[in-house]
Amino acid sequence: MIENLIAKNRSYRRFYEEEKISPETLRKLVNLARLSASSSNIQPLKYILSCDLGRNKQIFPCTMWAGFLKDWDGPGEGERPPGYIIILGDKNIKQSFGVDHGIAAQSILLGAVERGLGGCMIGSIHREKLREALEIPEHLEILLVVALGKPKEKVVIETVGADGDIKYYRDAEGVHHVPKRSLDELIVG
Amino acid sequence: MIENLIAKNRSYRRFYEEEKISPETLRKLVNLARLSASSSNIQPLKYILSCDLGRNKQIFPCTMWAGFLKDWDGPGEGERPPGYIIILGDKNIKQSFGVDHGIAAQSILLGAVERGLGGCMIGSIHREKLREALEIPEHLEILLVVALGKPKEKVVIETVGADGDIKYYRDAEGVHHVPKRSLDELIVG
Repeated sequence: MIENLIAKNRSYRRFYEEEKISPETLRKLVNLARLSASSSNIQPLKYILSCDLGRNKQIFPCTMWAGFLKDWDGPGEGERPPGYIIILGDKNIKQSFGVDHGIAAQSILLGAVERGLGGCMIGSIHREKLREALEIPEHLEILLVVALGKPKEKVVIETVGADGDIKYYRDAEGVHHVPKRSLDELIVG
Repeated sequence: MIENLIAKNRSYRRFYEEEKISPETLRKLVNLARLSASSSNIQPLKYILSCDLGRNKQIFPCTMWAGFLKDWDGPGEGERPPGYIIILGDKNIKQSFGVDHGIAAQSILLGAVERGLGGCMIGSIHREKLREALEIPEHLEILLVVALGKPKEKVVIETVGADGDIKYYRDAEGVHHVPKRSLDELIVG
């Protein structure tokens, strides 16, 4: 059921780093993005895959994690993502990418969850640092980093309270709580 | 299997218009979007649902269909979508919406396909005409129209040829062909 998969597809930020992801798994996840919709079918997205420690160590410091958790700088050693898919926009094909990378990232993460993995779309990226670290050519715009791995944290959906506060938080047991607006609040008329 | 669902989730543009969609189905599809990721969990998206003929007739002329099919103006009467979900960005919450609506639309369409429905994300919209027709307040930016229904056409994925042409086309039997780039073309390095 897609509903179960979507409900299970939370943004996970701590992983069993020692549980490796294979290049073949990453390719299969990109294939899900490949088969997804692209505006006017232009398909301008490209992908860099990473699942070896050396490359992961180059990528991790270029990513920023969980802005609302002010006293947490992101996952520590041993809890970092064992894999990444970096989504790029090929400016030789198109100058802007609309929501293609959102569609692609959603397909990738749903495929990950089905395999017992999980991850997080990261848009807060030190882009120039990442470009230099991986020698990404200028014509490829860095759009999103999708971090992937076997999740090592529990994420619970909550209802937004009367104060309207949507900030996620972590409790004393390390459980991550995510307030979601109600369906009635989202539907107009 | 999510792979089967994603492969089946083609952009459908002709429907059995007489096969109605219920408001409850549309609400369930929006709920899938509600449970999906939103940048920094801000959740700025709102939704207008339509599944009655009167409102559908207001929405349809505001949508533009299949730019690559030069001699086709979109579905004729009897083949038009029996339902729509209009995705809006609430500027009282946030000024820009990143890829939130791409993520949301992908969740909606995967949920539709699982129910034997299908649809199409439409970004080419006569926005001011739609705003007037449905009296959409100014603070709600019109982002995407998702057309929905039981598909009345066959869509086949093809491989992009040596000429690199990604334009979709319809053959003499009315089958819609969509050339997709190969996985190797998409993966850098």
